[in-house]
Amino acid sequence: MTARYWCESAWLGGDSAVDSVLVSVDDGRFSAVEPGVPCPDGAHVLRGVVLPGLANAHSHAFHRALRGRTQVGSGSFWTWREQMYAAAASLHPDSYQRLARAVFAEMAMAGIACVGEFHYLHHDRNGRQYADPNAMGAALVAAAADAGIRITLLDTCYLHGGLSEAGEYLQVNEVQRRFTDLSADRWIERLGDAARLESSHCRLGTAVHSVRAVDPDSLAKVADLARSRGMVLHAHLSEQPAENEQSRAAHGRTPTEVFADAGALTAGFTAVHATHLTDGDIGLLGGARCSCCFCPTTERDLADGIGPARRLRDAGAALSLGSDSHAVIDLLEEARAVELDERLATNVRGSHDVPSLLRAATVDGHRSLGWEDAGAIAVGQRADLVAVRLDTVRTAGASPAARLATVAFAATAADIHTVIVDGRCVVDDGHHVSIDVAGELHASIVAVMS
Amino acid sequence: MTARYWCESAWLGGDSAVDSVLVSVDDGRFSAVEPGVPCPDGAHVLRGVVLPGLANAHSHAFHRALRGRTQVGSGSFWTWREQMYAAAASLHPDSYQRLARAVFAEMAMAGIACVGEFHYLHHDRNGRQYADPNAMGAALVAAAADAGIRITLLDTCYLHGGLSEAGEYLQVNEVQRRFTDLSADRWIERLGDAARLESSHCRLGTAVHSVRAVDPDSLAKVADLARSRGMVLHAHLSEQPAENEQSRAAHGRTPTEVFADAGALTAGFTAVHATHLTDGDIGLLGGARCSCCFCPTTERDLADGIGPARRLRDAGAALSLGSDSHAVIDLLEEARAVELDERLATNVRGSHDVPSLLRAATVDGHRSLGWEDAGAIAVGQRADLVAVRLDTVRTAGASPAARLATVAFAATAADIHTVIVDGRCVVDDGHHVSIDVAGELHASIVAVMS
Repeated sequence: MTARYWCESAWLGGDSAVDSVLVSVDDGRFSAVEPGVPCPDGAHVLRGVVLPGLANAHSHAFHRALRGRTQVGSGSFWTWREQMYAAAASLHPDSYQRLARAVFAEMAMAGIACVGEFHYLHHDRNGRQYADPNAMGAALVAAAADAGIRITLLDTCYLHGGLSEAGEYLQVNEVQRRFTDLSADRWIERLGDAARLESSHCRLGTAVHSVRAVDPDSLAKVADLARSRGMVLHAHLSEQPAENEQSRAAHGRTPTEVFADAGALTAGFTAVHATHLTDGDIGLLGGARCSCCFCPTTERDLADGIGPARRLRDAGAALSLGSDSHAVIDLLEEARAVELDERLATNVRGSHDVPSLLRAATVDGHRSLGWEDAGAIAVGQRADLVAVRLDTVRTAGASPAARLATVAFAATAADIHTVIVDGRCVVDDGHHVSIDVAGELHASIVAVMS
Repeated sequence: MTARYWCESAWLGGDSAVDSVLVSVDDGRFSAVEPGVPCPDGAHVLRGVVLPGLANAHSHAFHRALRGRTQVGSGSFWTWREQMYAAAASLHPDSYQRLARAVFAEMAMAGIACVGEFHYLHHDRNGRQYADPNAMGAALVAAAADAGIRITLLDTCYLHGGLSEAGEYLQVNEVQRRFTDLSADRWIERLGDAARLESSHCRLGTAVHSVRAVDPDSLAKVADLARSRGMVLHAHLSEQPAENEQSRAAHGRTPTEVFADAGALTAGFTAVHATHLTDGDIGLLGGARCSCCFCPTTERDLADGIGPARRLRDAGAALSLGSDSHAVIDLLEEARAVELDERLATNVRGSHDVPSLLRAATVDGHRSLGWEDAGAIAVGQRADLVAVRLDTVRTAGASPAARLATVAFAATAADIHTVIVDGRCVVDDGHHVSIDVAGELHASIVAVMS
């Protein structure tokens, strides 16, 4: 049966929003998209500006438990990591499923139709495989199903405890035992089992944590596997200057060069952060048409710095966006922050225009996660619709020509009233249709942090 | 008659929020503040974390009409200024009162109890005084009364059209004719008439637009007047490198040095932006115990750069906050942005702890605006209360020790449910008690921008 939605205005990929768009949905996909059509009887009316589904290309769901807590006092990226490790140590499959279900539901309320979960919390507290070796991954996939969003489970290879200043790989510590499969071959073995998690709402992707946690030989194995199976590959890359120094000490090369030499840089590769790059790094990432996933609210939070988003795009890279540590879950804030932080770094306005920022949040984010059929309101695409109100105090007063810019630069997650994912309504009138999100966030965080 | 409010938790100025605070209000002021008290019958219950009234120390109300519009395409600070001038040209007292009433009501909904309106739109489109020479200022004062917030009308001296690269003061252009009183003496004369606008909710303050618009001799006259009458003095200072270059060309000194030599730098002076400063400038502003008003969302928007907030505080300056161009009206976002942007600039976390950021948003902002008796929940202070929900998706999960940090780093204006100003309830359950804010924003912006 065909469902019809009449959008007061919608973004169809151009420079501004288009008026009066009637979209038809069959079997979870758009079967017709007609601009300039009066609202027919029986169509669901979506007021404001309607966007395609947003893609959150980099998430660590459990970090949501740290929100606020890590802002007490001062510290560095590395002291923040201690707090993050303490949270990681407390999780098991049941508690993680409850927490992730609430976090993914918060994402749904922010218009996120698809999350890329960068998952390395594989084993129990003693580093032993669970009876189901993918129990934690399965918990995340079930959580996304409950929340009504798609997931790319980025099953992450994590082998070493870091690099010493002298450039030697370190043993994993007590917490990191949960992360490691001990070898790339055993990671590949577990990944084979994880394939059963794939479904209409779940894809499996690959990741290496970083050059700090995976040596070049193992990295090449992961990259080979990803390429041969057509899976996406994600990795943290040059988030902190210390990582670059360690990589140079260990390998005589930048992290990007190590990834390049391992054959990892392809259009299926996403470099997460990509903050501290050399000119050569930018050329490598751009030349290979990689995606670079910026996480500006986390990069502000962790004092990472401002990455060269414009230069990466100019070199040929695509941009994607992630809420990463979930200091904030608001992809509109991430999108504008790419431009606003670049303004701070360069004193130039307009390095990224509104359509560029929205493409990063939608179609290019979905591509980074392996969903070529999502992120645009177009016939054949998955039927995601995200309706943003233009009648709140934040958005009121937008002129027709500036509606899209108002959404990108002034709207927040709180202004999103309706979210449809794969043709199913997940958020209605600002409420999740099946989950008491704030209540479950509270209960699940108290359970793991007490 | 005594009104009583029982706060689930409240910030009384310390490092964290205090539980179960009963506050009593008589004649618009706090008559008792009792922590650790069970909720008595008949008290109004305020859930979440209750803050003192926020102070928005730098506002140009009419810029709200530009939100979103200035994000279409690219440009610089100076092209942005062209759009801002076009909006300025279209206003008259009635339309400005309607627009400002809606903008100030948006501020009330964001917990802002007091606004510093940096007002230089004095005259009619031809540069002639209105029949009431303070008709525009009166419109702003009436708008604040309607919206239920206090105002410091920062009556701004604006004499010249800018500085040439050679350092010569330029004639005002067609739009700027509305801004200028032609001489400091005539500005002083008009200010004398404006004194009648003062009331229990309005104070008069002084401002000079900038070293670009006011020559040193005139600046000295304004500073003398402000000092002799005990009025605050505000000025835009070193927002853009070009201003510094022009000042050096014209006067052989930085803008801060020009203000210092004019006798302007006192504890009653607020430097707005203070972005591009020399070490000497920082010493002058700190040594004189000036306030420095950071407007980070505007400074991001206009690609101004990141000012040295921590070094200014270390030198002795106070911080205050402003939403300035109203790209966003959310003082919580301004507060955390001071810290987050400094993290980007320095790669250090925790230059400003949570109480420091909240002091800038409350008591120090009020001091910058000349209200020594507001901005703290304490006996004798004006009875402002701003209640922030801890049960929304953004704030849920906060531990008791992290409640205040969660408010500062994760809450938004959308999480503020109750606002009391001078003992009167202005915002209840997230709604302004007397104004359809989004509706009036839309109508008043369409009226002036069409």
